[in-house]
Order: sequence, then structure tokens, then C-alpha cells
Amino acid sequence: MDPRIEEHAKILVEWSTEVKRGDMVGILTSPEGYELALAVTKHVAKAGGRPFSVLWTDDMSRAFFDGADYETIQLFPKHLLAMVESVDVVVAINAPSNTKTLAGVSPEKQMLNAKTMELIMGAYLSKRWVGTIHPCNSLAQQGNMSLDEYRDFAYDAILIDWKEASKQVYMIKERLEKQRSIRFIGPETDLYASTEGRIWIAGDGKHNMPCGEVFTAPVEDTVEGKIYFDVPFQQYGKIVQDVRLTFEKGVVVDFSAEKEEATLKQVIETDEGSNKLGEMAIGTNRGIKKYTLNMLYDEKLGDTIHCALGRAYEDCNGTNQSAIHVDIIKSMKEGEILAGDDVIYSKGKFFFEV
Amino acid sequence: MDPRIEEHAKILVEWSTEVKRGDMVGILTSPEGYELALAVTKHVAKAGGRPFSVLWTDDMSRAFFDGADYETIQLFPKHLLAMVESVDVVVAINAPSNTKTLAGVSPEKQMLNAKTMELIMGAYLSKRWVGTIHPCNSLAQQGNMSLDEYRDFAYDAILIDWKEASKQVYMIKERLEKQRSIRFIGPETDLYASTEGRIWIAGDGKHNMPCGEVFTAPVEDTVEGKIYFDVPFQQYGKIVQDVRLTFEKGVVVDFSAEKEEATLKQVIETDEGSNKLGEMAIGTNRGIKKYTLNMLYDEKLGDTIHCALGRAYEDCNGTNQSAIHVDIIKSMKEGEILAGDDVIYSKGKFFFEV
Repeated sequence: MDPRIEEHAKILVEWSTEVKRGDMVGILTSPEGYELALAVTKHVAKAGGRPFSVLWTDDMSRAFFDGADYETIQLFPKHLLAMVESVDVVVAINAPSNTKTLAGVSPEKQMLNAKTMELIMGAYLSKRWVGTIHPCNSLAQQGNMSLDEYRDFAYDAILIDWKEASKQVYMIKERLEKQRSIRFIGPETDLYASTEGRIWIAGDGKHNMPCGEVFTAPVEDTVEGKIYFDVPFQQYGKIVQDVRLTFEKGVVVDFSAEKEEATLKQVIETDEGSNKLGEMAIGTNRGIKKYTLNMLYDEKLGDTIHCALGRAYEDCNGTNQSAIHVDIIKSMKEGEILAGDDVIYSKGKFFFEV
Repeated sequence: MDPRIEEHAKILVEWSTEVKRGDMVGILTSPEGYELALAVTKHVAKAGGRPFSVLWTDDMSRAFFDGADYETIQLFPKHLLAMVESVDVVVAINAPSNTKTLAGVSPEKQMLNAKTMELIMGAYLSKRWVGTIHPCNSLAQQGNMSLDEYRDFAYDAILIDWKEASKQVYMIKERLEKQRSIRFIGPETDLYASTEGRIWIAGDGKHNMPCGEVFTAPVEDTVEGKIYFDVPFQQYGKIVQDVRLTFEKGVVVDFSAEKEEATLKQVIETDEGSNKLGEMAIGTNRGIKKYTLNMLYDEKLGDTIHCALGRAYEDCNGTNQSAIHVDIIKSMKEGEILAGDDVIYSKGKFFFEV
């Protein structure tokens, strides 16, 4: 076994979820994630917990959708809820065999199933949980890499000193919380929002691995200005590129994309909340060297910021409601981030790096 | 996908477990069994059930044993129990990556874990459950075949007319239950036992797939005579061959094996119940053409009988207790089976085939 798999497992068990004696642990994985699931199993046992693995894959969902009628899709999976309710910790490993397996399933069926699963997602989020990836060919392919290259890429962001990384994101969070607004400035960009009454969350690898971001939900109707996102993102199987948005009183009043503008339009027009920002965030993981169209990684890119159209996190005191939450990323090496009047980041350096 | 996988899945869902609308279904599998698990998932959905897959593998057990101390092994997995208790149906797919994965784990650890899991096994057996295999390299290797040869071998025994096969085993069961004893006669063999008050069970693919056997628990202290088992079996990683047993008042008073006699001795001397028969049975699946050292298949071999040392099934009204249940098989093409004075099988033919 690649020794980095063991190290990754140790971080998930010891840092992210802090498994302790007596813990019941559920591991969600695919066959591609099996080696990491085995390593997590061993480290959970070492910590005195009892592990148990569930297959959670797009292939399984596809097989279910291929067989199920609308009545069956709405059948509540009480066995899944029973399992989730009886665990203390969930480790969710994403390692798909194919990122497009669900492309041919009607959005109605997928939305209906997501609704059926809402209660289970809620139970899951009430546990000590972490989501991670295991390097596999489908993710490597999505990132334009060979599997070996992707492994190096993936572990560069995961196998870092999380205690140190945690200190840094907490320093940024504290500085942000001393002020009442956030402002992103850069090429074709000057975007402002009030953050009064909102909470900034420091992402230090407890829920996402890798992590490295500080995020909040802006006060919805205070977002003003324009922003140019130079990092592409994938939505509904399409790669949307070079997005420009203009906000007035929190609402998108103008938008464009150099590629797949129709998809951007579809996102913005999804529902009442999808033309507002649910999240504004700063990415801090410099172990991530480039975007790969996988949001777990891309939104953590060091020296970037991202904004999400749609649903806000309640943990941030956010209120915006939407069926979607679509992150879009901007590199900031040429930009500045201001909290109130305080320049906390400028041209590649945070305040504590100057 | 090999179309036989779909047919196999259909039999498991429609014949074995009779999944119906509203059923919660747990599927236990390994990565090697993934394709069958996917096909089962689809057919469960078609039948209106909600499937959910759990990874249940020797690799997982090994990883757990490698990490766990004795205290952790005794930690009760309440998440597993919650899951099992909340399903209506369990489909257990055996498709190991390696049949020797647990060979290096101490028997004490394995026995202790089995004890911790007893309650879960009990809950599992109270459901509609079926155990099956999915053809894979480790099972093919154990049976001295290539994977393609093994697939043909495996499906020949599974993809049969189960309604017809069911009729036959029920005919045999009825005939046996009219009498109060069973007798196996053949080369170096004349073994008798009372079956008074015991139940004969017709195995027609509801719990094992493939199936094809009729079995009971003999009245423990009435087993008399001698028997020569010409089909080898595997125990503790050893292949035991050409076993001869002599019984007096139900107890083994003489034994020999031409290969691995020490292992046979270990089996017989395990505990108080391991030198008595817990099962006497007739194999009826002529789709199985040869033994492969996999008991799910071997004990169902057409034109054979088998006896098990050790634990008796309560469902048969058996009372013998033991930590072991070790089946040993004898071909009967040269032999006879008598129920009381009624010759129900002679030299390759059952009473209904004469």
C-alpha cells in the first residue's frame, strides 16, 4: 500500500474526526476508495472505535434510478437513517469510477431522490463527519493528469501540518470578525458586502480533507459591485469559464461567461435565491497547485477567493434559500481583500506574512 | 455486463427473497461482488424496494484485527445491529479478493469477534436472507479453474428452474418425514441414525444460492456405524481427504484421514459436541459438476450426501451444541439412501426417477 494512504487515514481519524475509544464509525466509500477505507478501518480500530463500511457510489444510485419508479424513489430508506443515527462519526470517501455516471438520469428523479434523502443528510451533518477524496483515475482524468501525477497533486494538499494550517485560518477568521464587511478588489473586480451578524468559519480539515478556507454568508441584500472569476468551474457536466457578475442590492443584475454562458444563466435563474450570494470565502491551501474542476479542491486553492450563488450555510447565520449552491473562484495574486478598512491580504500575502 | 449477472440478480430478488414494494434491503458485498450488487440494486428497485449496500469483506475484518486490541474487538457494533434490525431482506454476496486473508489472524481474536457478532448474526437470520457467491478469481483459483471456466461452473448451478428444483427437494423431504430414521449405505459405509422428532428441511434456493439439499439434525446419540467420505474438504486452510469415521451411540470412536488427519483430529476434539453429528443431508444440485472446496457449492453436489460434525440447526429440532459445524461429503453414485425401510435413492436415481 502507498504509505501516503496510511498517512491520509491517520489524519482523517486523528485530526478530522478525533475518533476515540467506543466510537461507532461509518465509512462511506466506493470500490475505488477501498484501500483508503481499509486504512481508515485499521486506524479507527487503533483508536478504539468500531468501523463499518457502506458502499456509496454513483453506480449504485444509477442502478437504483434505472430500476425505480417515482413511488420507489420516494420510499424513505429507514435502514440508512438507522445506520446514520447510530454512528458517532462518518468518514465519506469520494472516489468515483466515472464522474459522468449520473449524466443520463433525469434531473427530476435526482431532485426527488435528494428530497427523500434530506432527513438522512441532516442526521449525517449532526455527527462528527469529514468528506475526502481518494486519488483515482476518474478524478485524475477530470484534472487532466495521470493517476500518479494526481496522487502527488492530491497528497500535497492533504499531507500537511494541520495544526499549523489551523492556526492560520483562525488568525484570518479573528481578523475578519473584528470588522463588519468584506471587500474583494482586483482586475475588473470591486465587490463589497456587509457581514454584520454573520459568522466566519475557519475550515481547518475537520469537515473537508483537504481544507483551507475561511467563509461566511454575506448579508444578502448588501452585496454591491462587480467581480471577474478567472477560474473555470463545472456544473451540469459543462465547464463554465471567465464569469463576470454585477450586483446591485444583493441581486445579480448583469452576468456573462466566455464559455457556457447558457449554463451560467440556468444556474442564476434556478429559483428565487439563486441570483444572490450564499457564501463569500477565502481559499488558503497553497498545497493545491492548480484547479481540477473538483470543488473540494478548487475552492481551497491558496491565494484565491470564491463566491457561491444560492444557498447559505445556517452555521454562518446565513438566510438565503435555494436549491443550488454553486461556487465560483477567482485568483487573487493581483488583488486585495479588505475587512472593513483593514487590508488583510494583498498581492499574494496575508497580513501575518508581511 | 455478463447477462448471467442480471439473471442471477433476478433469481436472488424474485425467487430467494421475494422482494416486494416497500421492502428495505441490505446488500452485503465486496468490491469483487460489485457488479452483482449493482444488478441486485436495480432489481430490488424494480420490485419497489429500497436497497443499500454494505462492504463485508475479509480485508475489512483483517484491517480491523490489525488495528484492534482485545477491548476494541469486544466493543459491540450497535450501528451494524441498527442497520440489520431495520431491514426486511439481506442479500449476502461472497466474492473474496483472497480466501486466505484471515489466515494470519489469531484464532482467539476471531472467536472473540464472532462472539461479539452473535447478536447481529441472530438478527440477520431472523430476516428474509440469502447467501450467494459472485464468480471471482479467488474462488476460481480455489476450484482449480480459470475465471471464465468458473463462471460457467457457477452459473450452471444457479441459473436453473428453481420452481422445478423446489418440487423435487420437497418430494424428498415428504418421503423422509414419513419415516423415523435415515441410513446411508455404500462402499465402506453403513451409517444409521434415528430422526424421530426431527424436521427435514428442503433447501430450494431461499437461503442459499445455489441450493439443492435436504437436511436434518439426527437424534444425537443414535448415530451408529461407519462411513467413508471420498470428497475432500478444507478446514483451517488445510485440505482434508478420504475421511473414515466410526460411530457408537452417536460418538466418533474411530477416525482416519489419508491427508491432514491432524486437522481432522483437531476438528473432532474441539469441544464436547464436536465428536457428534449435527447434520445429515442429501445433495441434489446436478448443475454442480465437481467439488471446488467451497462448501456453499460442494454440499449441494448432486448424487452426494454429507454429514456435519458439531453444531445442529435449531430449525431441525437439533440439540447438539458446538463451536464448529464442519461438513464432510460422500458421493453416492455407488450407494443407497434409506428412510426407515424405504429406499429413496439407489445408484444415481431418486425414487421419483426410477
